[in-house]
Amino acid sequence: MHQSIEILERTPIVLQNLLEGLSPEWTSNNEGGETWSAYDVIGHLIHGDKTDWLTRAELILSYNVEKKFQPFDRFAQFENSKGKTLKQLLDEFKEIRDANIIRLRSLKITEQDLEKTGVHPTFGVVTLSQLLSTWIVHDLNHISQIARVMAKQYKIEVGPWIEFLKILK
Amino acid sequence: MHQSIEILERTPIVLQNLLEGLSPEWTSNNEGGETWSAYDVIGHLIHGDKTDWLTRAELILSYNVEKKFQPFDRFAQFENSKGKTLKQLLDEFKEIRDANIIRLRSLKITEQDLEKTGVHPTFGVVTLSQLLSTWIVHDLNHISQIARVMAKQYKIEVGPWIEFLKILK
Repeated sequence: MHQSIEILERTPIVLQNLLEGLSPEWTSNNEGGETWSAYDVIGHLIHGDKTDWLTRAELILSYNVEKKFQPFDRFAQFENSKGKTLKQLLDEFKEIRDANIIRLRSLKITEQDLEKTGVHPTFGVVTLSQLLSTWIVHDLNHISQIARVMAKQYKIEVGPWIEFLKILK
Repeated sequence: MHQSIEILERTPIVLQNLLEGLSPEWTSNNEGGETWSAYDVIGHLIHGDKTDWLTRAELILSYNVEKKFQPFDRFAQFENSKGKTLKQLLDEFKEIRDANIIRLRSLKITEQDLEKTGVHPTFGVVTLSQLLSTWIVHDLNHISQIARVMAKQYKIEVGPWIEFLKILK
């Protein structure tokens, strides 16, 4: 659990340092088409922390007989983020994540708990261990994505170097 | 220039927040084979800031007639990082980058300067503008890479979710 929490608790700070105060050219643009900007991704992370990860973990550990997870809405941020600045979203994510870390610690998850299971709408039976590992990889995935989306804003500006920069392909 | 410096100056802080104090399982492991760990990447970034980006920019802006860049050693970190802790490398990167930002600002680069050129060992003639844009994309590329390398440490742990996590493929 220690190795999981040490990642989860730093994600909001990493994102604040990476994004807060940047010119909107870096944070409002996406990779083209239906892809997401950094701004969109922060809204998605907030929605996950509000409705998904910890809620599912608590369901697995609860006395409920019914362990079926609610499907996750991957597009909720387009409604929820409306009218908010990026700074507001970054602060909101920090707040909900900090609260979730406190809740997560208070669950005092044991090795035995990690093997307990819930039912995922697509995959069927999954363990608490798999859920928590996925939460972390999901964070890292979106940090990686945000850096890539930002890099792509300079796709033309780098000129011939594009050949050495796999991230732009 | 403003949009470039605002990225360059925050990279060391983002990396300190992402990596400092983490368990070595996250920072010393790579993606397998000859790939790089987070630790290796920080050494690579230090070497670039010591010998490459700003040195090339200064050469372009200098009165030298000979504008040929020195080739960059992409493996120097395996020698230079020896015996150093990750914390030492992160601090060293912060120090050299902060110094480079001061030097970069002191160059007072104009729009006209951005069109000045140097000679890259592979690409031939490149502009100062392309060089500086590449410096930024290079930072973002390695932030993205580090998040990916860390994510891959949980490739098995996520179980069936691997299907939804493109970063693990």
